[in-house]
Amino acid sequence: MDALILCAGKGERLKPLTENRPKPMIPIAGKPILQHIIDKIEDLVDNIYLIVKHKKENIIEHFKDHPKVKFLEQGKIDGTGEAVLTAKNHIGDEFLVINGDIVFEDTLEQFLKYKYAIAVKEVSDPKNFGVVVLDDKNNVIEIQEKPENPKSNLINAGIYKFDRKIFELIEKTEISKRGERELTDAIKLLIKEENVKGIKLNGYWNDVGRPWDVLEANKYFLDKIKTYISGKVEENVIIKGNVIIEKGAVIKANSVIEGPAIIKKGSIVGPLAYIRPYTVLMENTFVGNSSEIKSSIIMKNTKIPHLSYVGDSIIGENCNFGCNTITANLRFDDKPVKVNIKGKRVESVRKLGVIMGDNVKTGIQVSFMPGVKVGSNCWIGASCLIDRDIESDVFVYK
Amino acid sequence: MDALILCAGKGERLKPLTENRPKPMIPIAGKPILQHIIDKIEDLVDNIYLIVKHKKENIIEHFKDHPKVKFLEQGKIDGTGEAVLTAKNHIGDEFLVINGDIVFEDTLEQFLKYKYAIAVKEVSDPKNFGVVVLDDKNNVIEIQEKPENPKSNLINAGIYKFDRKIFELIEKTEISKRGERELTDAIKLLIKEENVKGIKLNGYWNDVGRPWDVLEANKYFLDKIKTYISGKVEENVIIKGNVIIEKGAVIKANSVIEGPAIIKKGSIVGPLAYIRPYTVLMENTFVGNSSEIKSSIIMKNTKIPHLSYVGDSIIGENCNFGCNTITANLRFDDKPVKVNIKGKRVESVRKLGVIMGDNVKTGIQVSFMPGVKVGSNCWIGASCLIDRDIESDVFVYK
Amino acid sequence: MDALILCAGKGERLKPLTENRPKPMIPIAGKPILQHIIDKIEDLVDNIYLIVKHKKENIIEHFKDHPKVKFLEQGKIDGTGEAVLTAKNHIGDEFLVINGDIVFEDTLEQFLKYKYAIAVKEVSDPKNFGVVVLDDKNNVIEIQEKPENPKSNLINAGIYKFDRKIFELIEKTEISKRGERELTDAIKLLIKEENVKGIKLNGYWNDVGRPWDVLEANKYFLDKIKTYISGKVEENVIIKGNVIIEKGAVIKANSVIEGPAIIKKGSIVGPLAYIRPYTVLMENTFVGNSSEIKSSIIMKNTKIPHLSYVGDSIIGENCNFGCNTITANLRFDDKPVKVNIKGKRVESVRKLGVIMGDNVKTGIQVSFMPGVKVGSNCWIGASCLIDRDIESDVFVYK
Repeated sequence: MDALILCAGKGERLKPLTENRPKPMIPIAGKPILQHIIDKIEDLVDNIYLIVKHKKENIIEHFKDHPKVKFLEQGKIDGTGEAVLTAKNHIGDEFLVINGDIVFEDTLEQFLKYKYAIAVKEVSDPKNFGVVVLDDKNNVIEIQEKPENPKSNLINAGIYKFDRKIFELIEKTEISKRGERELTDAIKLLIKEENVKGIKLNGYWNDVGRPWDVLEANKYFLDKIKTYISGKVEENVIIKGNVIIEKGAVIKANSVIEGPAIIKKGSIVGPLAYIRPYTVLMENTFVGNSSEIKSSIIMKNTKIPHLSYVGDSIIGENCNFGCNTITANLRFDDKPVKVNIKGKRVESVRKLGVIMGDNVKTGIQVSFMPGVKVGSNCWIGASCLIDRDIESDVFVYK
Repeated sequence: MDALILCAGKGERLKPLTENRPKPMIPIAGKPILQHIIDKIEDLVDNIYLIVKHKKENIIEHFKDHPKVKFLEQGKIDGTGEAVLTAKNHIGDEFLVINGDIVFEDTLEQFLKYKYAIAVKEVSDPKNFGVVVLDDKNNVIEIQEKPENPKSNLINAGIYKFDRKIFELIEKTEISKRGERELTDAIKLLIKEENVKGIKLNGYWNDVGRPWDVLEANKYFLDKIKTYISGKVEENVIIKGNVIIEKGAVIKANSVIEGPAIIKKGSIVGPLAYIRPYTVLMENTFVGNSSEIKSSIIMKNTKIPHLSYVGDSIIGENCNFGCNTITANLRFDDKPVKVNIKGKRVESVRKLGVIMGDNVKTGIQVSFMPGVKVGSNCWIGASCLIDRDIESDVFVYK
Repeated sequence: MDALILCAGKGERLKPLTENRPKPMIPIAGKPILQHIIDKIEDLVDNIYLIVKHKKENIIEHFKDHPKVKFLEQGKIDGTGEAVLTAKNHIGDEFLVINGDIVFEDTLEQFLKYKYAIAVKEVSDPKNFGVVVLDDKNNVIEIQEKPENPKSNLINAGIYKFDRKIFELIEKTEISKRGERELTDAIKLLIKEENVKGIKLNGYWNDVGRPWDVLEANKYFLDKIKTYISGKVEENVIIKGNVIIEKGAVIKANSVIEGPAIIKKGSIVGPLAYIRPYTVLMENTFVGNSSEIKSSIIMKNTKIPHLSYVGDSIIGENCNFGCNTITANLRFDDKPVKVNIKGKRVESVRKLGVIMGDNVKTGIQVSFMPGVKVGSNCWIGASCLIDRDIESDVFVYK
């Protein structure tokens, strides 16, 4: 049994987080989405083929030492069908196919019992998904793409079990005008010829489409952690709740940590800092004096040295925050924060801070309004109030 | 023996604090002015009649379960005389009459010894008060209203002992053009016919006319408190001086409290917060990380979550302060802070912060200049510098 | 053996630090430069003549009780030669002459062995100094003033041993058009007639010409201190590294001090404050809640009460910082911070904050860009962003 994970996509809706990394490499609860998937399947399969393209070096660097992982680069043609086809000359007779940008809680053992299977997830509003219709034996009888009138509330959850027959069927599908070949077109052919079992996922599942989905998934998995402290904890540090402090991390004097939270190796917190629940500090971050981080992901090498507040935010790698950088995360009218997603202004959640790319530097006393996105490599000058999205590579100043 | 407390006035000079509550309900040292009065007299009298009108529901809600308290609503005619007359058909033969907006320290037992008495207080500059002239037996022989040339330095302190004769005399007085009937007009008639004893108050007395009087009285009564801690105090919290922490309040880790201070039930302080002397946090307030409160009254349900400083200020109920909201409380030239009181710019005291109504929300990094007043229900946008008074129901933004 | 220390200069390049004090009175590692010099030589000599002029009262006040110190005021003519000549009628037969604005580590005992000697220091780029050329017996054979093509990398370190012959030679030199008489002109005559030994300094030496030299020297001497705590240290205060806390200083609860640092008598730190390495708090300073000071000199009576950050800065006496006053100390491009020195924009070091004179008051939420200078007696209004130098006695506001 092999596995094939689709990791080639661009993740447009998650920009700027995907400017310098593929979506499967966004960290959730302290490790990339893709790592979550591999951790779940590595004992079930012989080989794991990662289909890569956009920012592939990022994936290769992270997984190159994994004994079961192999990398295959998708060619000119895009789409999930084409991605699967990339593995044709490498993969074994039977294999799992998994979207590389989902997180899920169920184990996949039951998939191995069937020749053909597809995971489905019950949702309340399936209109924006691929809807899967099952018969009374749970065999797939129809797949609808973002239907006006869904015939079921089960959606395609992005996990499949196939054998090599899928390659033939993909080759029979057409390449769309956008130059893409979609896996679901082949599955529609498959269900005409074979029994394809619909397997309902019972546990948590999230396709992490928008920035606040990242934070929601982060919360979900943080609620599962157990306290494990192997870093250095200085005097008068108070730790409450479940907290992981990795070896090589230091919590400096008089700080307060409220879990669930993860503080990864090389990170420094404090002195006199405050880490609130649902925070992840990735490797080599620094959160210093009188700074407070809440429900946020701070990626590696980022520094928030003093008198800053970051709440309900995702901050990229290698950022440096000037003293007194403050994020707002709530509207006066308590309505959902609005965010630009692929050019459209959409409602997110009640509390959302800033979504920031990598290598951003802020000056002192910079403030961010709720839901703004800041592209990578920006410099935000002192005392600026950022109330709209900032493209990458921009120098904003007063 | 009954008592009658005048609580119907509008308290114009204390706006915005009186926008949603009558002046007697302004909290001083953790309880309303009116509660201070009732606590002093409830053992001396049989019935306590509260004459209410402006925002009466606020008073009724607070005192409705008090076994001796009864509520009487003043009619169309305003004024203290009319207020007393409101009780004519209810009250007993002899009774105390007390202005509902004064705080004082003396007990009132000695008033019960006389048929007619009036409290007087010695002040250095009586020109803006009702001046009371006594003979050598301490009987009142004259009352002057805000006299150019006061004949004594004793002022009418707003506490009286009468019998039912006062009703006849009030009925003899005229209703002014402003539609008011004043108690002092009746007293002027009374002193012609009866001996009215002037009783000098020896203890603290304050008619709490202007916002800084509220803070001054607050200081006075806080200096009398004794430490009583029945709330939860977490690790490494340092408490100095006399501090009351009510049951149901929580002082979170690594905070510092310097008394005298009162922290009422349901309130949360910290972690890493700093409460300085002469602070009162009313019920269900929150003062969080790296925030500092000094010589201020924070009314119930107000939240000051992070990196804020509030000094020498009065903040209404249900306010929410964005991160890094800062009050200034001192002029560069060290002169008294100027405040608008009923359209006039008057000098207050050397240190005065902001006077804020209820339900105000501030964005992040908002700053207030010394002595500004902010009306209820305002929204103050991020990064605003508020250097003049803001009317109620206004959205200020940059 | 006597000593003569030249303390009359104006220290133009160190403005505004020298507006109210002569350069030798700038504090380094907790005491004036001049105190460092006197501490080094007081056991070697009988009398110490201080040649004073600019802001002489400042020097006299500080050293008036020193048993060996005498003050001589330089007359109308300026220059180091004239300064030495001022002592002609007072000083003994043999004497050290020392520039009053240098700090150095070597003891001066070896100078006493020679009739004529001059200290030299090896530097990598001697072009902007007086260059000293020695023969193979270490006798001075030439002195070059800021030469294009230096003949050696040894510079005149500002420490000399003479006898009274130097007075004759100074009197032979001419007064320049600028009205100055320079000591080196006399030394050039001296080396023609006598053996003048060049003595190489091995230890640290700094002529403290520019503000960042003050901070560099401060660091150097702080690295030599040993922990000595005789002030009051409250609960949960964490002290790391070598820290001097003088008697009469108080470190309030839950603060963190990281040495090397010096906190002088009468100062108050905290509660919840953070003092970082290479900080000196002079007498009667106050650094309060959530404030952080790093690699900075805070002169006496200055108050930084709350939520402020001061890094890589020199702050004069009697300053008062409004809440949330923040210094920036780093450029986005990581290039050296530029500073105006006598009208020219010069590169300093990678991290430099603000250089501030005395009696400056800042409002709340004021921010300073890296390398700005603020003259004495300025008032900086709330929310101002100071991105250029401010002259003395200015009121800046928004």
